[in-house]
Amino acid sequence: MSNVDSIDLEAAAYRLRGVAHRTPLMTCLALDQVVGGQVLIKTENFQRVGAFKFRGAFNRVSSLTREQRTRGVVASSSGNHAQALALAARLCDTTATILIPDDAPNSKLTATRAYGAEVVLFDRYQADRESLTSELANKLGATIVHAYDDPFIIAGAGTTGLEIMEEAKWLDILLVPTGGGGLLAGSALAARAAQPNVRIVGVEPDASDDWQRSLAAGKRVNVHVNQTIADGQQLPTPGILNFEVAAPLLERVVTVTDADIRTAMRFLFERVKIVAEPSGATAVAALLAGKIDVRGQRVGVIISGGNIDVQRFTDIISKTSMA
Amino acid sequence: MSNVDSIDLEAAAYRLRGVAHRTPLMTCLALDQVVGGQVLIKTENFQRVGAFKFRGAFNRVSSLTREQRTRGVVASSSGNHAQALALAARLCDTTATILIPDDAPNSKLTATRAYGAEVVLFDRYQADRESLTSELANKLGATIVHAYDDPFIIAGAGTTGLEIMEEAKWLDILLVPTGGGGLLAGSALAARAAQPNVRIVGVEPDASDDWQRSLAAGKRVNVHVNQTIADGQQLPTPGILNFEVAAPLLERVVTVTDADIRTAMRFLFERVKIVAEPSGATAVAALLAGKIDVRGQRVGVIISGGNIDVQRFTDIISKTSMA
Repeated sequence: MSNVDSIDLEAAAYRLRGVAHRTPLMTCLALDQVVGGQVLIKTENFQRVGAFKFRGAFNRVSSLTREQRTRGVVASSSGNHAQALALAARLCDTTATILIPDDAPNSKLTATRAYGAEVVLFDRYQADRESLTSELANKLGATIVHAYDDPFIIAGAGTTGLEIMEEAKWLDILLVPTGGGGLLAGSALAARAAQPNVRIVGVEPDASDDWQRSLAAGKRVNVHVNQTIADGQQLPTPGILNFEVAAPLLERVVTVTDADIRTAMRFLFERVKIVAEPSGATAVAALLAGKIDVRGQRVGVIISGGNIDVQRFTDIISKTSMA
Repeated sequence: MSNVDSIDLEAAAYRLRGVAHRTPLMTCLALDQVVGGQVLIKTENFQRVGAFKFRGAFNRVSSLTREQRTRGVVASSSGNHAQALALAARLCDTTATILIPDDAPNSKLTATRAYGAEVVLFDRYQADRESLTSELANKLGATIVHAYDDPFIIAGAGTTGLEIMEEAKWLDILLVPTGGGGLLAGSALAARAAQPNVRIVGVEPDASDDWQRSLAAGKRVNVHVNQTIADGQQLPTPGILNFEVAAPLLERVVTVTDADIRTAMRFLFERVKIVAEPSGATAVAALLAGKIDVRGQRVGVIISGGNIDVQRFTDIISKTSMA
């Protein structure tokens, strides 16, 4: 398939049934009071491997032919995609080989290996990631699974949006964190198919405002990526297919600062009692920072992931007052 | 009623319907792997006011006569009971007056007032809490609502157990944190009514092992309460009615150390992505510390609350390696 449609979403939902968690849609009266609307929080931090990424990865790997599965999958990632693909491969009885920069935190390597993947380290300052991935895939005869720019990944991620709409019945607005745009494209597609007039808003860190600028330009543009704690969204440009699918469905994209994200992470901890990683908290950050007016509205908001250890959480949150 | 039975539980469930949250029963494969059993986690940290206490408080206040409601409720508490009663009173259109020691953290006062209660401060080293509470209740003509030693509080708390059994269908063991014993007595009653052979295990901090000692003695005994981070369970003796109800239903009571609790809080944060306060984490702590063998068993475990701010969480967790 060259694009993604509702049929692909339904097929993804079918493949994921009984495999991915159907994560809770939570409410928090304190949040409703702060923003003046009714907020439904989709908790993909409770998804397998701690992030929505499992949905796309499993949808991709479970769609491989038997022959492809004998030769495995390859990806380059030090983030949630690595662990998601590792687990998906194990569940589908195939092998995953993950390229990880040799300066990535040790915890990422350990976690990825714990899900059964083979980890190949590379020097990110010497080697070209793309060509290294291709080379490795060629050598192994394996299938490269891109972290977001792939119709199966988009459809898999979109099952998040399907579940939200099934449970919420209707929404005025859906707020979705976006990096490459797998979750945004998939969920926008799902939500609009369920309810054509739902307003879709993407959220990204202001340090990496490629979606906002691309939407303004009407085409994918490259931005300089500044430092941000939102490490899942540090990408210079939207995915090709992701932008093609999402752009026509988006009302707008708003950006949040690291300070906004910290405030949201703290709020989620203290008031909602859940753990969100920085990128995972961006959509809630947009709400709390008033980046979008939701007074009197019924709002869906996705927490995309919760993979952060106590030490990093503490380091990040302790900067709240400075930010 | 002098005791509590299934009818009271059903009545409590009826009163709480649409008012209390039906909190999720979560699973975590990582936890299952560590303990070698199948664990179902009842997340009362997601309950209103962040703890199971809301169930009992609302059951009590909503059972008051119209006349009693015109004169309000009184309690002495600096913990979750204070906030639970404050919210229950507001929802039932009555007033709550809460006695809080004047050295309690400011956050407790603020939170209790935020739910609409009147806060009366007292010097815990000068005044006798019990007589002060009686005096205030007499003056106001108000009803005293005890934090745990009350049939309505027990029945309300027991709806936690009802929900677990409804959703779990069956369990080998149910692990319940216990302080005064509201949650333990109520949930034991509910679980045993649903499934007479379910094994009930109470969990308390070793710094305050009054339940374990009382069970061994066959009657309520007083213990010296040592320092512990499990501030919701620092009580010298079980509640009278609580012990009467729970003792015949308990297989045993196990104790956990502060180090066990820290490990559980960290595990819940990093692996389950949820926030538990120290007392809230004690039952999970017992599992992780191997205080009870659950290999091959299907185990229900209650997280009783999640009220802890980031600062205290950080302070507590940072001591992990020392403990």
